[in-house]
Amino acid sequence: MIMGAGLVGSLLSAYLKKHGYDVTIYERRPDMRVDRISAGRSINLALSDRGWRGLEGVGLADAVRKVAIPMHGRMIHNLDGSLTFQPYGKEGQAIYSVSRGGLNCVMMDEAERLGAKIEFNQKCKNIDFNNNSVVLENNDGKEVTVTADLIFGADGAFSAVRHDMMFTDRFNYSQQYLEHGYKELSIKPNSDSTHKLEKNALHIWPRGGYMLIALPNLDGSFTCTLFFPFKGSPSFEELDSPAKVTAFFKEVFPDALELMPHLEEEYFENPTSSLVIVRCYPWTINNSIMLIGDAAHAIVPFYGQGMNAGFEDCVDLEKLMVKHDNNWDEIMPEYQNIRKPAGDAIADLAVMNFYEMRDLVGHPEFLLRKKIEGMFYEKHPNKWIPLYSMVTFSDIPYHNALAEGQKQDKIMKQVMSMPGIEEKWDSKEVEDLILQMLS
Amino acid sequence: MIMGAGLVGSLLSAYLKKHGYDVTIYERRPDMRVDRISAGRSINLALSDRGWRGLEGVGLADAVRKVAIPMHGRMIHNLDGSLTFQPYGKEGQAIYSVSRGGLNCVMMDEAERLGAKIEFNQKCKNIDFNNNSVVLENNDGKEVTVTADLIFGADGAFSAVRHDMMFTDRFNYSQQYLEHGYKELSIKPNSDSTHKLEKNALHIWPRGGYMLIALPNLDGSFTCTLFFPFKGSPSFEELDSPAKVTAFFKEVFPDALELMPHLEEEYFENPTSSLVIVRCYPWTINNSIMLIGDAAHAIVPFYGQGMNAGFEDCVDLEKLMVKHDNNWDEIMPEYQNIRKPAGDAIADLAVMNFYEMRDLVGHPEFLLRKKIEGMFYEKHPNKWIPLYSMVTFSDIPYHNALAEGQKQDKIMKQVMSMPGIEEKWDSKEVEDLILQMLS
Repeated sequence: MIMGAGLVGSLLSAYLKKHGYDVTIYERRPDMRVDRISAGRSINLALSDRGWRGLEGVGLADAVRKVAIPMHGRMIHNLDGSLTFQPYGKEGQAIYSVSRGGLNCVMMDEAERLGAKIEFNQKCKNIDFNNNSVVLENNDGKEVTVTADLIFGADGAFSAVRHDMMFTDRFNYSQQYLEHGYKELSIKPNSDSTHKLEKNALHIWPRGGYMLIALPNLDGSFTCTLFFPFKGSPSFEELDSPAKVTAFFKEVFPDALELMPHLEEEYFENPTSSLVIVRCYPWTINNSIMLIGDAAHAIVPFYGQGMNAGFEDCVDLEKLMVKHDNNWDEIMPEYQNIRKPAGDAIADLAVMNFYEMRDLVGHPEFLLRKKIEGMFYEKHPNKWIPLYSMVTFSDIPYHNALAEGQKQDKIMKQVMSMPGIEEKWDSKEVEDLILQMLS
Repeated sequence: MIMGAGLVGSLLSAYLKKHGYDVTIYERRPDMRVDRISAGRSINLALSDRGWRGLEGVGLADAVRKVAIPMHGRMIHNLDGSLTFQPYGKEGQAIYSVSRGGLNCVMMDEAERLGAKIEFNQKCKNIDFNNNSVVLENNDGKEVTVTADLIFGADGAFSAVRHDMMFTDRFNYSQQYLEHGYKELSIKPNSDSTHKLEKNALHIWPRGGYMLIALPNLDGSFTCTLFFPFKGSPSFEELDSPAKVTAFFKEVFPDALELMPHLEEEYFENPTSSLVIVRCYPWTINNSIMLIGDAAHAIVPFYGQGMNAGFEDCVDLEKLMVKHDNNWDEIMPEYQNIRKPAGDAIADLAVMNFYEMRDLVGHPEFLLRKKIEGMFYEKHPNKWIPLYSMVTFSDIPYHNALAEGQKQDKIMKQVMSMPGIEEKWDSKEVEDLILQMLS
């Protein structure tokens, strides 16, 4: 059985059905395809290569591609109103803006089409790890106990399955909150349903200690997210009146403000949400119960990899099911062994990308560094894959990408300290230095 | 109200009574003074200066001194049977072996004498942080709700109060287990109730990846603790038969084995316990609920500071009660502000001391370093207090001690790398180098 019919739970059910398992998913919420509810989380997500591979494995990629908007790069909105476009990768490479709710509905449909059962309004009350049984409570407070050979906790960052694992002996666990929170806002479409900003880009207003971003939606709107400190100056705490909010946006996001006539209402209607990083280990118990996706490794959203990492969990799990011929005594230990370092690495990378996005993305030095890396990558595509590309456009394990990125970082620090680097950035001398340091 | 009538809860109640508060303690366990139960944890503890100050503040030190056994240093049991004695500090300085249960009984008596009420068999089911109320369940499953202006979570490493705080927004939390566990064993007294080993020492059998220690009890026995890996070789997992246990002890703890004729029974009767480090923040909610002692900062036992740190929490809290004239809106923020870095530092120091005790304590280089530090400390007592002394025999905040210790570490690395240091360790040259590096 699977706890949680979110993105990872639904995808996992499809993989398990593909391999002939009986699958029932228990979901705490009502069916979002019937009652139009928000999933309680961000409205759109960035889907990239690891996520696509997850969808391809169960034949879902084509259907999703129809409702995904490619974003070929970052569109930086400078304070003076000027724009700078930074491609994410090579020609043709993009990350894709998709609706979380829409994607989840497609995936639940597919899970059911493949024969998985989904039971909604089922809250996981308690797990008996010795008997592989779960006590579920429905909306009327009625409890039932269900058992299964395998139990998957795909129930997200605040996983009930993981909560009960916390009380098993020697379970390592940490939940760590950022000082920043986020609030969703929006830019409405033009009256002809076209986008008010460049559609095929992820828009960023980097401002040092905080930032605003915007991702395109199919209806012509953008979902904007303000990542902002909870306390201090400026902060959510400080912006406590409509007038203060507008004045602040006028000062720091003037071009965005012009497109957001509903800012004041939205700002005070929408919740301020927190950002948590969850790490734990082990991810499996008795080789019959396992955590997957956010339940095992909740990360912050700044690399756009949360869903992608969870889908890759499913892809790697399927490989192990094949490799070990469905022997879960071999699958589970190897699963946590290979996925735990990946989960830890993407957690670190996501925090690092927050600093990059809000602090560096607007700096001339950062842009120069990106240009040099791009130049070298083009000349020596086998010797240098930029970190962003390794994470977003490859299946290199996250931890290998992180290690490689740290090596690159060292090299680029040396390169950037070369006298006159601004002029000679594309010279043979720079190229040779990098080659030498790589070898 | 205070949750938990353990060492810190009992002491805290005495401090609160001293300042005129109404105090009720709710304790999950039965009254250990009536039913002779084990507190579920280690049998004896090392009391040092911070702990004594805590007892002195409520006039309990003299009573405890009568049942405490001074340990003036470490007695190292080498593999060849030879012994090395390392004093802990200066002449007259010692840490004290006390019985956890005995101490707890004395403190509960004192708490009640001062007018605190203790309700036993009361399990904390759930806390309402908005109404300062706690749902308690007694042994018969009957629930009552109690409220109080102030709620103190002094309920230990697996605190129920802290557990509920985990679900308040942005509560940072981590629980991290060591790869090592521990098992308690014993050395019985001689027939005339005298001790079979030197009474006024903490005995250590350091063996690299693991160690055995022994602390004296009043009845002539020693409580021994084997700190040992759970898995690998050697490990608890590996020693799975009486014959293997005896063979292993014969090989690595031969002199201890001679004194432990009951080893095989004890080894398999006594549980193998795990070692956890808990960190969290904030420690207070709404300036009316706070964590104290292990509930706020559970640490590993290798510095003998767990109880001492909790008692120091109480001492610092009393200072703030006086400073802020019982205004808890000022006391609570400052309490967590000053105690959190102390708690983090002693957590780190305790892990570091594990490595020192099991790895270094038997090495000639370690002994030489201790000699040099001792030499310098004697000549310049104002310039160099050994880290162990700062932690154990002073009230220097733990985090300042840790920082100072790291500085000393750097200096001693340099000193130990001097050519011929073995011969000239007490020379003017060495003294001058240290003086120069300190300035």
